[in-house]
Amino acid sequence: MGRLGTETAMAISVEASAYAAAGKRVFPFHLGDLNFPTPMPVRKAARTALDAGHTGYCPAAGIPALREALAADIGKARGLDYNSANVSVQPGGKPTIGKYIAAVMEKGETVLYPNPGYPIYESQIEFYGGVAYPYGYVDTEAGLRLDFDAIEAGIAAGARHLFYNNYNNPTGASSPSAEMERLAQLVIEHDLLVVSDEAYFDMLFEGEPRSIASLPGMQKRTLILYTFSKKFAMTGWRLGGAIGPHWLTDEISRLNVNAESCTAHFVQHAGVAALKLPASETDIIRDRLRARRDRLATLLNEIDGVAAHLPEAGFYLFPRVTELMARTGFDDAETFRQAILEATGVSFCCRYHFGRPLEGEQEHYLRFAFSGISLTDLEEGMTRLTEWTNSH
Amino acid sequence: MGRLGTETAMAISVEASAYAAAGKRVFPFHLGDLNFPTPMPVRKAARTALDAGHTGYCPAAGIPALREALAADIGKARGLDYNSANVSVQPGGKPTIGKYIAAVMEKGETVLYPNPGYPIYESQIEFYGGVAYPYGYVDTEAGLRLDFDAIEAGIAAGARHLFYNNYNNPTGASSPSAEMERLAQLVIEHDLLVVSDEAYFDMLFEGEPRSIASLPGMQKRTLILYTFSKKFAMTGWRLGGAIGPHWLTDEISRLNVNAESCTAHFVQHAGVAALKLPASETDIIRDRLRARRDRLATLLNEIDGVAAHLPEAGFYLFPRVTELMARTGFDDAETFRQAILEATGVSFCCRYHFGRPLEGEQEHYLRFAFSGISLTDLEEGMTRLTEWTNSH
Repeated sequence: MGRLGTETAMAISVEASAYAAAGKRVFPFHLGDLNFPTPMPVRKAARTALDAGHTGYCPAAGIPALREALAADIGKARGLDYNSANVSVQPGGKPTIGKYIAAVMEKGETVLYPNPGYPIYESQIEFYGGVAYPYGYVDTEAGLRLDFDAIEAGIAAGARHLFYNNYNNPTGASSPSAEMERLAQLVIEHDLLVVSDEAYFDMLFEGEPRSIASLPGMQKRTLILYTFSKKFAMTGWRLGGAIGPHWLTDEISRLNVNAESCTAHFVQHAGVAALKLPASETDIIRDRLRARRDRLATLLNEIDGVAAHLPEAGFYLFPRVTELMARTGFDDAETFRQAILEATGVSFCCRYHFGRPLEGEQEHYLRFAFSGISLTDLEEGMTRLTEWTNSH
Repeated sequence: MGRLGTETAMAISVEASAYAAAGKRVFPFHLGDLNFPTPMPVRKAARTALDAGHTGYCPAAGIPALREALAADIGKARGLDYNSANVSVQPGGKPTIGKYIAAVMEKGETVLYPNPGYPIYESQIEFYGGVAYPYGYVDTEAGLRLDFDAIEAGIAAGARHLFYNNYNNPTGASSPSAEMERLAQLVIEHDLLVVSDEAYFDMLFEGEPRSIASLPGMQKRTLILYTFSKKFAMTGWRLGGAIGPHWLTDEISRLNVNAESCTAHFVQHAGVAALKLPASETDIIRDRLRARRDRLATLLNEIDGVAAHLPEAGFYLFPRVTELMARTGFDDAETFRQAILEATGVSFCCRYHFGRPLEGEQEHYLRFAFSGISLTDLEEGMTRLTEWTNSH
């Protein structure tokens, strides 16, 4: 248990709630949750399933209807053939991380993972006795790019597994085609397995998303982490899946038998309904997120000493604030964060919530989520933040 | 993964389904599931919570209202004081097994567990690198009694942890007061921790159930596994909890952060409603189960060569069939099971589905569940079984 981490970003929610409970106004840029209702047809499907008596146990790997629908939907969006044997339904996207590690990683094996990245990779690799080998991003004019020096060093150190989170949380980084192809080539050359965390795959604002599983030779060595949380505003339903080679999804389902028997039965019927929704139902959510993203990027970049790339997908901006911190007299990100929360009510996460700092890391970054705050509140929060920075 | 077990009883369900799909009638005595609907007020509470927007993330340890309600309800039924810090909400009863082991057991430690017993104890102890030390039951006139010789041998072998499932699945065994007190004394004397699997605590047919946590000195060394599955006919909702010392529930909640973030949010609101149900709503379920139990026990015991104790609680009878098998010419339980399924449609589990046979074990037992079969079907199935035994 000493090696088990947590999501320290959750502590920010607790702090923000306490702050709000004290009667102060909070602008929740820390929230990786959505302030949209789950579409009505999905809620209705849950109700229908409940009343139809889908309240008993179901197979550990999921109900056949949902496994088939996921295989079809995920396959179609990626130009790949999957069938229900390739699908293990999970209570959320997150369970795929720990279950992959428990199923496949041998103790002492090296696992590459993004840092900054979702903190559960690092936590679960280390909990199960692996060696967590971080790779970061290079901040270029065109956006954040994978640090291939670190990835190649990890491979040279014997890495057997790679966590890859295109449309990354927290950085918003996404791979141009050439970058993804270069990564796939390394994976194949060195015989790695990949967990492709595609939590934000369906949250691309323009164009067509791309999965590393769809590159030649990659389907058989990629496990896709899928979640209903983002596209369908279903974070609290806990519904997702692991999709990949069936030898691997079989092992993962066996872990489900042991861990939680099955994912809630009627919730899976709601998932089938979600996958049948017309695009118009989910485009609304994405359109509103796009408007928030654009406004937030503009307002952040107007602040002297702040530089934020526009993410192609997801819920987050990852502004570099090294200059702003220097200008306002802070050298510690946590002190900076608390000072701003105290003075303005603007609440956000910092880079350090998403993994241990890398060797030689110099720049400071923050994570601003725009998924859980209205456009009006977003603008007012940014006005307060801007005033605060101007007064320092 | 080589050490990870499964619930082989699930294979029986698959077999029975295939048999039914081929147009044959199946009498499902293998099912540890309930053929009752979840009470309407609970379903209604889920719907209300969905429409009220309780569809986002919630704390990993559960929503405060459910933690408080569980602390009060579980404490009251056991004469103990708990508060919400003692409660970690889980997606079902089962997750408490693996999470306890992951949180507390050191690799190589010895863990006592019931065998016959719920197969996940053995599987999870071994998966996390512990030494699974089985203890069985002694078949007495008065019922099945804990084998203290085995328990004491396990303690002498250095056991640090004990799984205890009063109102046991599959045997239906329950401890008289003196037996539970003797067990608690050993636990305290040898400084063990106990996971008290109380899945069937609320399914006692007569009198007041008793928890080992309520014996002097035991609350601080007992983690209670609680589930909504049985009492409220909510098996497929996946809702339960781990209740015990807060240092332990804190660790377990940290595993929830890593494994599945939280238990489905609106499902927890339904759980709050379940705990408020008047007794009349749940007594109906228990009354019908009692009638099935009584009828099944009578009919089983009328068969020559079958001896079944009447369980005080739960869903199961555990008839000893050693003589019947000898009389009908079978020495292998699996062959016997298949022959009966083929000839009569009566489907049940065997002792071997609930743990590796113990050294020197001679008797044969079956598990007949009465939770998933109507009284009428139960009687017809038993008629067919009786006819089959008479014709051999």
